[in-house]
Amino acid sequence: MGILVMKFGGTSVANVERIQHVAEKVAQAVKEGNRCVVVVSAMGKSTDELVALANEITSAPSPREMDMLLATGEQVTISLLTMALQSKGFAACSLTGWQAGIQTDAAHGKSLVKHVDTSTLREHLERDEVVVVAGFQGITDEGEITTLGRGGSDTTAVVLAAALGADRCEIYTDVTGVYTTDPRVVSKAQKLSEVSYEEMLELARLGAGVLHPRSVECALNHGIPLVVRSSFVDEPGTWVKEANQMELTLNVRGLAHDMDVACIRVSKLPNEKGTLAMIFQALAKENVNVDMIVQNEQNEQFFDLVFSVEEADSKQAVEVLEKLADELKYQSIRCETGLAKVSAVGVGMMKQPGVAAQMFQTLSEEGIQIKLVSTSEIKISCVVARELAYQAVQRLHTVFGLDVKEEQAVTS
Amino acid sequence: MGILVMKFGGTSVANVERIQHVAEKVAQAVKEGNRCVVVVSAMGKSTDELVALANEITSAPSPREMDMLLATGEQVTISLLTMALQSKGFAACSLTGWQAGIQTDAAHGKSLVKHVDTSTLREHLERDEVVVVAGFQGITDEGEITTLGRGGSDTTAVVLAAALGADRCEIYTDVTGVYTTDPRVVSKAQKLSEVSYEEMLELARLGAGVLHPRSVECALNHGIPLVVRSSFVDEPGTWVKEANQMELTLNVRGLAHDMDVACIRVSKLPNEKGTLAMIFQALAKENVNVDMIVQNEQNEQFFDLVFSVEEADSKQAVEVLEKLADELKYQSIRCETGLAKVSAVGVGMMKQPGVAAQMFQTLSEEGIQIKLVSTSEIKISCVVARELAYQAVQRLHTVFGLDVKEEQAVTS
Repeated sequence: MGILVMKFGGTSVANVERIQHVAEKVAQAVKEGNRCVVVVSAMGKSTDELVALANEITSAPSPREMDMLLATGEQVTISLLTMALQSKGFAACSLTGWQAGIQTDAAHGKSLVKHVDTSTLREHLERDEVVVVAGFQGITDEGEITTLGRGGSDTTAVVLAAALGADRCEIYTDVTGVYTTDPRVVSKAQKLSEVSYEEMLELARLGAGVLHPRSVECALNHGIPLVVRSSFVDEPGTWVKEANQMELTLNVRGLAHDMDVACIRVSKLPNEKGTLAMIFQALAKENVNVDMIVQNEQNEQFFDLVFSVEEADSKQAVEVLEKLADELKYQSIRCETGLAKVSAVGVGMMKQPGVAAQMFQTLSEEGIQIKLVSTSEIKISCVVARELAYQAVQRLHTVFGLDVKEEQAVTS
Repeated sequence: MGILVMKFGGTSVANVERIQHVAEKVAQAVKEGNRCVVVVSAMGKSTDELVALANEITSAPSPREMDMLLATGEQVTISLLTMALQSKGFAACSLTGWQAGIQTDAAHGKSLVKHVDTSTLREHLERDEVVVVAGFQGITDEGEITTLGRGGSDTTAVVLAAALGADRCEIYTDVTGVYTTDPRVVSKAQKLSEVSYEEMLELARLGAGVLHPRSVECALNHGIPLVVRSSFVDEPGTWVKEANQMELTLNVRGLAHDMDVACIRVSKLPNEKGTLAMIFQALAKENVNVDMIVQNEQNEQFFDLVFSVEEADSKQAVEVLEKLADELKYQSIRCETGLAKVSAVGVGMMKQPGVAAQMFQTLSEEGIQIKLVSTSEIKISCVVARELAYQAVQRLHTVFGLDVKEEQAVTS
């Protein structure tokens, strides 16, 4: 009998009624012959409420005590969901992170899972019990309670699926799957029936927001098939799996956008060894997160450098560069805000030379100026004026053939 | 340096402001040179809220899952209080019941502490940290989270004090100490500066409600001096300690009353072996809690039996007896409701033959009929009509010399 890991996020367990609904879904999976491990988050806004309580006490709570506090949120959910399952006549048992053997490092608030001791989990599964595990939390070798940081419950689910050799890991959320782009921007956005880990990673990082990148990386590393589906609507979701197991059809599989972009342009930097390292080390030291980096040589003596940051970080980035003015000897710095990034994502897309050209041509026809371009194996990103970003996404969605359902796209 | 265990109940940590106030009190104790272990309950009504949540899910939640749920309440408090101490510049560390090594049996919801592994506690104390421990909870040998039932946090405090060889255990509550009787009934009720474990046990059982009997028993068994004092008003509380360490002055040390009493009278039971056992086994099987039992032989063939129960249990008690009518062959059953129990408590009191007589005489002079009497080494209890109980307590308080402060009583 196969093991199925199911994960339900905060909105899916926001109140008693929804917890009962989740219990129904789990019950159905048990009836279908699965051995189920269910990972849950804290109810709705309860984590936010606990954080607010801590902030009433002190503006700088210790990370260890924050973990102690926040870990209670998931513990409430596991007990309530287990009661709901039991009251429907199903054998079930709740386990906290430490009871489930989720061993982490000691980086409170953002711990990484080191190892899962599955012995207790397996004992309960062998007794044909549904095991309900608290997501987001673990324990150090010294017995300290830790949390895994943002998206931690997704990671818990994938890590357990890997450790137990589960058939698949189902991530239940408030959307019905992964879309070709944000349905709020493009009304014709289509749900993808499958997407590769790598594509999902790019879509996740670029703001699709369905799955946390760490959980996708973990699934990729262990080859665990993920299914993203709705906990509210009963329809097939999106499979996230290895590219070589997918029937690839379209070159471009999805479009992502990031509306919070600023660009810093450093002109005429002397072409000296160590200049780039100096700049990005200085930025890192001030916690400025740099996204895209483009460098182009003007001639043998000088080069230009452009990089993008979140708009809130742009002032700090300029200050860092101004402090280094004497050492770097650049001609000028220019900071442009009010920008956005539009990206086309697809496995193997870059092997099709026409894709980049088609993207540039489309934006040009729309009169949208491209400020910066960056490419990887599976994506092309263009920085454009923020007020034109939605227009860009809408037009590209049509041009790349994403407006129609996948089945139609395959046969056409 | 001595170890001090301090316990703060739910009302003392009901909100952030009160938690800050508790942190001040603990800080003061640290400054006075104590190594402090602080035991806390869940904040205010939070346990009730968790119970309500469980009852929304199911009317019969499993005891294991209830413990999983309720244990989160104290975990929230320990982290917040630790943050408050840290923000005042004190080294502090929170520990859940299982982290603090509180090993219990597996009777979920009413577990008994079997053993305390103090190694982690001592590690933290040796680093001069205040250790903040979640009350009310423990762990079984199998790693299951348990709770100790009503008054569990008092028990946690006393158990830790015993295991650590603490100098004393301070129980902070919403009253300023143990009184000669309920100050709401007798305006002249006086705070006792000390009371023996045994007296405290009787007062606790009889409804004084300050300390849970289990914690008093535990303190008695381990000879841990307890101090009951207010977390809101800064004044000396009441010491609870061994009778032989007290300067005994008054015969009667306090009066207690229990307003929820019903009496069942079984008349003319045949004097056969096993009759009493049969009756009380049958009552226990139906979870009827019997309090006082009085038996008196009418002659060699027959005896009468009177016992008291909570009024809510009285109907059930009568039904149990009616079912056994054929076997017991009694003449009649009579159930009297609307009663109350008034008790005088004092170590060694019964060695003073005048006390019982004085109590009966006083009630008689007040025109209060005594329905039932029961005595132990340290108390006399009389069942009277409920509407006369306060009058009885008030008059007895004066007659037994409790209206004046202890110091005055000693010198007079």
